[in-house]
Amino acid sequence: MRIGVLGTGAVGQALATRLVALGHDVMMGTRDAANPKAAAWATAAGGPGPASAGTFADAVHHGEVVINATAGTASLAALQAAGGAEALSGKVLVDVANPLDFARGAPPTLAVANTDSLGEQIQRAFPGARVVKTLNTVNANVMVHPEKVPGGHTVFVAGDDPAARQTVIELLRELGWLNGDILDLGGIQAARGMEMYLPLWLSMTAAQETPMFNIRVARA
Amino acid sequence: MRIGVLGTGAVGQALATRLVALGHDVMMGTRDAANPKAAAWATAAGGPGPASAGTFADAVHHGEVVINATAGTASLAALQAAGGAEALSGKVLVDVANPLDFARGAPPTLAVANTDSLGEQIQRAFPGARVVKTLNTVNANVMVHPEKVPGGHTVFVAGDDPAARQTVIELLRELGWLNGDILDLGGIQAARGMEMYLPLWLSMTAAQETPMFNIRVARA
Repeated sequence: MRIGVLGTGAVGQALATRLVALGHDVMMGTRDAANPKAAAWATAAGGPGPASAGTFADAVHHGEVVINATAGTASLAALQAAGGAEALSGKVLVDVANPLDFARGAPPTLAVANTDSLGEQIQRAFPGARVVKTLNTVNANVMVHPEKVPGGHTVFVAGDDPAARQTVIELLRELGWLNGDILDLGGIQAARGMEMYLPLWLSMTAAQETPMFNIRVARA
Repeated sequence: MRIGVLGTGAVGQALATRLVALGHDVMMGTRDAANPKAAAWATAAGGPGPASAGTFADAVHHGEVVINATAGTASLAALQAAGGAEALSGKVLVDVANPLDFARGAPPTLAVANTDSLGEQIQRAFPGARVVKTLNTVNANVMVHPEKVPGGHTVFVAGDDPAARQTVIELLRELGWLNGDILDLGGIQAARGMEMYLPLWLSMTAAQETPMFNIRVARA
């Protein structure tokens, strides 16, 4: 599958590298075409799938699926720079970003919370995009290698387009997430809870002194 | 142990009944001394421990440990009515409330979020109280009978006073929570994440069509 990954941070690198290793054709998109991190990634990625680098707009044009792995507080601007509503129309847009605000230092607060979410903001700004929020509740290493945390543990999916959610669920399975561990929360409004979970995730990371964990839903 | 439970809702009833059954001396406190729900509870509770009813102030006076099970948006007023800072000074004050705001209908938003929490507000308003946030992340039935959800699952504890946290951890063990499933998050600021988890809990409740679940922390 042709996939565009927006962002060169730890999350973008982890997802792009793993998707190439799984055989996908991945372009990493950046603000500037000459971004050295993206070029270095494309050279190093290897794997059965091809790896390339381009602008945000190039990556959106390239991808049947586009992954937003930019910093949450810069995501709307990055998606606008990528061509905005027209370029994103019809694309499955996987939003893995968290709108973390470090203006007051650590721990960060959320720049969007309670009555809204970044996932919903993106869906409103680009109504033709088929936005699916997922993977924002785990560390980059857990995202792409869930088997590193033993036993079953849960990943959430939310988005208004059921077919887009299904496409994303199939990608999650390829990454190693087990069927029974993928919890479909329905429409994109559930992105609110997925993002507002971050302060608890940060407290758990501090208490356990590691980000290599996840939560598992246990049912009666 | 003498325990005051503030509130006659599902959470207050569940906790008060279970604590009497475990042999504690429990007074249920309400705004009005003549509250029929509290009187009916005191008559029905039974168990090895005694059960009584009184005002918020009576229940605070009664308890070595006081449990805030009032509606989150009314908790500060209830604690003020209970005698405020002076009456609460030195008490272990277990805050299980969530500041849910139903003004815009369901699902509720949080009346306090992101840069503050109800737990922190209570600690600031009553600085001599030894506030410990816990149990707000599960349904009332799961609070008092964690074994109803099979397998291990996690309960969080946060509060500035380590000895008060330890007292609460021992009460959690009596309720049936297992040692390895009690995650101490440290200071009361972690109440922020524990309360902001509620929107995700509500989305999971809707998706699973039951509140009888909890999350388990799985570590690498």
